[in-house]
Amino acid sequence: MPDPRFAQGDLTAAAEMLLQAAGCNVEDAALVAGSLVRADASGLPSHGLARLPDYLKRIREGGNDAAARPELVSEHQATAVVDGNHALGQVVATFAMTKAIQLAGVYGVGAVTCRRSSHFGSAADYVRMAAGAGCIGIATTNASGTMAPFGGITPMLGNNPIAIGAPTGDEPFLLDMALSVAAKGKIRLLAAQGEPVPDGWATDARGRPTTDAQEAVAGLATWMGGHKGYGLAIAADVLSGVLSGAGFGSSVGAQPEHARTQEVGHFFLAIRIDSFLSPAEFTERFDGMVGELRSSEPVDGSGSVLIPGDVESHQRAASAEQGVPLSTAVWSRLEDEAHTLGVSLARPEPVTG
Amino acid sequence: MPDPRFAQGDLTAAAEMLLQAAGCNVEDAALVAGSLVRADASGLPSHGLARLPDYLKRIREGGNDAAARPELVSEHQATAVVDGNHALGQVVATFAMTKAIQLAGVYGVGAVTCRRSSHFGSAADYVRMAAGAGCIGIATTNASGTMAPFGGITPMLGNNPIAIGAPTGDEPFLLDMALSVAAKGKIRLLAAQGEPVPDGWATDARGRPTTDAQEAVAGLATWMGGHKGYGLAIAADVLSGVLSGAGFGSSVGAQPEHARTQEVGHFFLAIRIDSFLSPAEFTERFDGMVGELRSSEPVDGSGSVLIPGDVESHQRAASAEQGVPLSTAVWSRLEDEAHTLGVSLARPEPVTG
Repeated sequence: MPDPRFAQGDLTAAAEMLLQAAGCNVEDAALVAGSLVRADASGLPSHGLARLPDYLKRIREGGNDAAARPELVSEHQATAVVDGNHALGQVVATFAMTKAIQLAGVYGVGAVTCRRSSHFGSAADYVRMAAGAGCIGIATTNASGTMAPFGGITPMLGNNPIAIGAPTGDEPFLLDMALSVAAKGKIRLLAAQGEPVPDGWATDARGRPTTDAQEAVAGLATWMGGHKGYGLAIAADVLSGVLSGAGFGSSVGAQPEHARTQEVGHFFLAIRIDSFLSPAEFTERFDGMVGELRSSEPVDGSGSVLIPGDVESHQRAASAEQGVPLSTAVWSRLEDEAHTLGVSLARPEPVTG
Repeated sequence: MPDPRFAQGDLTAAAEMLLQAAGCNVEDAALVAGSLVRADASGLPSHGLARLPDYLKRIREGGNDAAARPELVSEHQATAVVDGNHALGQVVATFAMTKAIQLAGVYGVGAVTCRRSSHFGSAADYVRMAAGAGCIGIATTNASGTMAPFGGITPMLGNNPIAIGAPTGDEPFLLDMALSVAAKGKIRLLAAQGEPVPDGWATDARGRPTTDAQEAVAGLATWMGGHKGYGLAIAADVLSGVLSGAGFGSSVGAQPEHARTQEVGHFFLAIRIDSFLSPAEFTERFDGMVGELRSSEPVDGSGSVLIPGDVESHQRAASAEQGVPLSTAVWSRLEDEAHTLGVSLARPEPVTG
């Protein structure tokens, strides 16, 4: 049975109310709620409201500080270093990408690192900001060390996402990818359903390829592209963690350890298009490229060729029309949080389901 | 039988002589010869002297201009646009990364695009330059459209490499990767040897997975990580081609079309480490990360965990000791070129083989 769907505004209001009850100011609550509900609306529930209970618990138990403001530690010409002060990751990341875009406005390119941050939601959000400001944006973050180095079996490296965004004449190009073949969350879901794991997704704890979901849950997700995905994860951690002064490798904390600061690091780059060529020319050229890609003959029996961001964009359109899907289990966890926070949370009327 | 090995200086001198005979000045000849022989010494013959006959033919037939100088088209603060004027790609790329490093010295970060360029050899060379100058370097280039979009079967997108480099206390971290699971050249080699192609490397011309080497040669190499590698290839072309004013997508020329300019584009970024934290602190942190990765328990039966750049670094050490491997077939093609150019090329005494 598909999840019930709710009006996006209703879910956002509920999340804002909980975040404010936990101590966030109105702006931060709107920012974080917007990030989570947009992920659900985009068909990415792993980065959606399912994360909110962890955020609220982390604020309560000390891993995050709802009242903290990110601040500039240093600024040299086109670069800046941000101390997140353990504010929620979305607050830190939005502050930092705003700074990178501002620097790019002056210098043509701006690079900003962040330390003392935490889970920042969907990396796509920050490169979308850049694309909306006439820039190509790059965003990376590190994450807790759930992956083993290629050829190894000791978990110590994050499944560090990399996102790149650029404007087109239509919806922006948004590439946002973690570096495993499939997320550990999907492997856990298959295990819970008693299904096998597709070939190539996982190994057991000894590093031997497996399709047994229980072995895979106890084991390791595999890198996309093998040593190539592993290399990209190191590069992402060099930019996000090593360069920023944040945690890196195995020292990055896990989100569910609510009382511990995560010490996550991020990296943001904004490249102002009009430093290189006119935005109109860029858009015309990029639209030409996208149009050519869409014109490719499809593989037999498949639909048309997609561009990164298409699937999420279609999901957002469906969510705008039919409501945002949210599982009953997640809603029930939000109710538990409301109870703990001593606020009243009325379940909105589902649009469908 | 392994290829004979030659003293690196002998191979470099031979390549320099041929390039000078074709019209390159002493500096350009040394740069290009160094790039090619270093690739052979690093165990990457696909980017080595095997390419030199194409370079020489392109100069002769008009696709490249040995006498051309790359020049700055525009420069805005921390950004610059380079017109390669169809000089050899290594000459253009070295000029551009030198500029990016110089801009990073002033602004903390520098971004440089190139248009009207050609095959630039190993992307690792340029990020090594950045790492040697206290920077994290990123280099991308586009390439002729041999790959189909994910879900499609029409070749129109390059197997665009991405390289990232950073200094450590020892050899620099050098990640340099094309975006297919395996290079088409390796598939051709297996076909020539009558061997099957490993599962997941290729499809036939209709996009159906195949291990038949003949079908794979007539077909398509697959993206590493499926839609993720495809997305990265688009991103690399946006930076290298769309943003630079170069060719992009299917408009990039193939190297073996010797009379046609390739219209390749490149993108270079240099991020100066000391804008963010002290180089000593960066190196200490990065060495800590690398040390931790190497300490991972290996997968049963495998050797120790590797860091990107390790394999090439070991190969260079072996080449320094035992000579640089070069196939007799490639040497014979260099002799043909020498004959055409009217110069005398004495085969150096092999060190081994």
